[in-house]
Amino acid sequence: MLTEDNRQSLIQAAIQAKEYAYSPYSKFRVGAAFLCTDDTIVNGANVENASWGGTICAERTAVVKAVSEGRKDFIALAVTSDIAVPISPCGICRQVLREFCTLDMPVFLVPVDYPKKDAKDGGILEMTVGGLLPYSFGPEHLELPRQPTGPQ
Amino acid sequence: MLTEDNRQSLIQAAIQAKEYAYSPYSKFRVGAAFLCTDDTIVNGANVENASWGGTICAERTAVVKAVSEGRKDFIALAVTSDIAVPISPCGICRQVLREFCTLDMPVFLVPVDYPKKDAKDGGILEMTVGGLLPYSFGPEHLELPRQPTGPQ
Amino acid sequence: MLTEDNRQSLIQAAIQAKEYAYSPYSKFRVGAAFLCTDDTIVNGANVENASWGGTICAERTAVVKAVSEGRKDFIALAVTSDIAVPISPCGICRQVLREFCTLDMPVFLVPVDYPKKDAKDGGILEMTVGGLLPYSFGPEHLELPRQPTGPQ
Amino acid sequence: MLTEDNRQSLIQAAIQAKEYAYSPYSKFRVGAAFLCTDDTIVNGANVENASWGGTICAERTAVVKAVSEGRKDFIALAVTSDIAVPISPCGICRQVLREFCTLDMPVFLVPVDYPKKDAKDGGILEMTVGGLLPYSFGPEHLELPRQPTGPQ
Ligand SMILES: [Zn+2]
Ligand SMILES: [Zn+2]
Ligand SMILES: [Zn+2]
Ligand SMILES: [Zn+2]
Repeated sequence: MLTEDNRQSLIQAAIQAKEYAYSPYSKFRVGAAFLCTDDTIVNGANVENASWGGTICAERTAVVKAVSEGRKDFIALAVTSDIAVPISPCGICRQVLREFCTLDMPVFLVPVDYPKKDAKDGGILEMTVGGLLPYSFGPEHLELPRQPTGPQ
Repeated sequence: MLTEDNRQSLIQAAIQAKEYAYSPYSKFRVGAAFLCTDDTIVNGANVENASWGGTICAERTAVVKAVSEGRKDFIALAVTSDIAVPISPCGICRQVLREFCTLDMPVFLVPVDYPKKDAKDGGILEMTVGGLLPYSFGPEHLELPRQPTGPQ
Repeated sequence: MLTEDNRQSLIQAAIQAKEYAYSPYSKFRVGAAFLCTDDTIVNGANVENASWGGTICAERTAVVKAVSEGRKDFIALAVTSDIAVPISPCGICRQVLREFCTLDMPVFLVPVDYPKKDAKDGGILEMTVGGLLPYSFGPEHLELPRQPTGPQ
Repeated sequence: MLTEDNRQSLIQAAIQAKEYAYSPYSKFRVGAAFLCTDDTIVNGANVENASWGGTICAERTAVVKAVSEGRKDFIALAVTSDIAVPISPCGICRQVLREFCTLDMPVFLVPVDYPKKDAKDGGILEMTVGGLLPYSFGPEHLELPRQPTGPQ
């Protein structure tokens, strides 16, 4: 359950995850953490690749780590980086979130200097999965009937 | 320029692009087309891969085709599929659009039965790049100063 | 250390990992497991995505899970699926392996009916990371001097 | 047909393609070109993305460009960069080549200073698709019967 205590633990788990980022190319470290329904927290960091396209972000690392351990019951996500503004998930990660999360699931974007003095909620920007990927493409669209018509 | 004529040509180019979709795994054909500032239209189809992760969508096919021919001055995008509802770009494609398009660039999502009788604008759903990827991560974030602090 | 006991544990960990595959689109379950220098085993399963391109294979799931927990000292990999022939990593995964593994690291490809009766090593095909990705592109190539000459 | 003339045109097309590389992050330009059975040449450059994972290499750009124009009858590939050694396709691209090319299709890896004085074939390293991705996973594996057994 997303209590204030769990929310703080979630944020700290995202911050700690960053320590294991493998980002020799971008030098851009990101940490992410999911809260699950049973209060478990699963975190992840970005893992870059010399081929660029093989890079996996922190959010997706956390997702596949959780799913491959039998957890898909996410109820909140926190994401943080080394930047003093809230950094938001890339589109690839948003699509992967879309596969497993409800559209109203909260996503906390945490600046590096959290808690920022005199900032609302310490500088956290709160979004939702649906807010990050409006009018999204999802699993249900693959089930719709096809009408393979060509150019008229 | 996005005249009514160019808009119609763009939609037809997206529909035609679908003919060359390579989608043996999903059987889901998608076509996309960009209008450039000089009225050129560049289109693309989805190209799937046995490894799943190697799949490239229609929108990204059209982007890399255009960019690799020296065009990055996109002013509108049309996307269509074999489905009777407007299908919207996946998150990966939204992120690639974000790299080259202005946030207010129009994106026309075209149903297979376009023009739908009695539907507003023939059933087209009009979005923008920024509307598809709100509070997006982009090139400018990679330029921000880093404060590589660890857990306190 | 790759003792016979550790090798058996590694194979069983790959087989168990398969149980948590999320593969509603391909219905193709894959499990993978890494042995680390301290005898720890980290496993992973494939996690598919409605966008196809967002899919992450079992091998990469295991890599990012390990790396994001501070482990990069892999000494062996086992991969298995629901197929009665040894299934081998896709090119994306081979590139990600290339980032963290030595070229002579053994990769055990395990058929679903392991141990196969009367088959050498129970039907396992043993490869190496370098054997899977010969003359590979790697981190060191990004360090080479550039001579940005154009067409003559 | 892979005549000496076509081979030279192919190499020059790869070199020219590099001019349109979009590589602000890696500063690593790559060009690729395919020869098709009707002697057409289709080329492409790498197109990077702020999200790293959204990056598409030169080889894949050329593939999707060709496929989305109805061409899949590739008979040779040339790849070049700004580096004085032959740079070879990443694993992602090798997997995408695997989808459309025969295993014995030649791949010419061209150094930036081609033709190198006193070097065999001007410094070109010639590989094959099958040689780049030995014991590969391909479309036919998705057709094999599954035996979804679990841990014993
Ligand atoms: Zn991401
Ligand atoms: Zn897409
Ligand atoms: Zn793979
Ligand atoms: Zn590549």
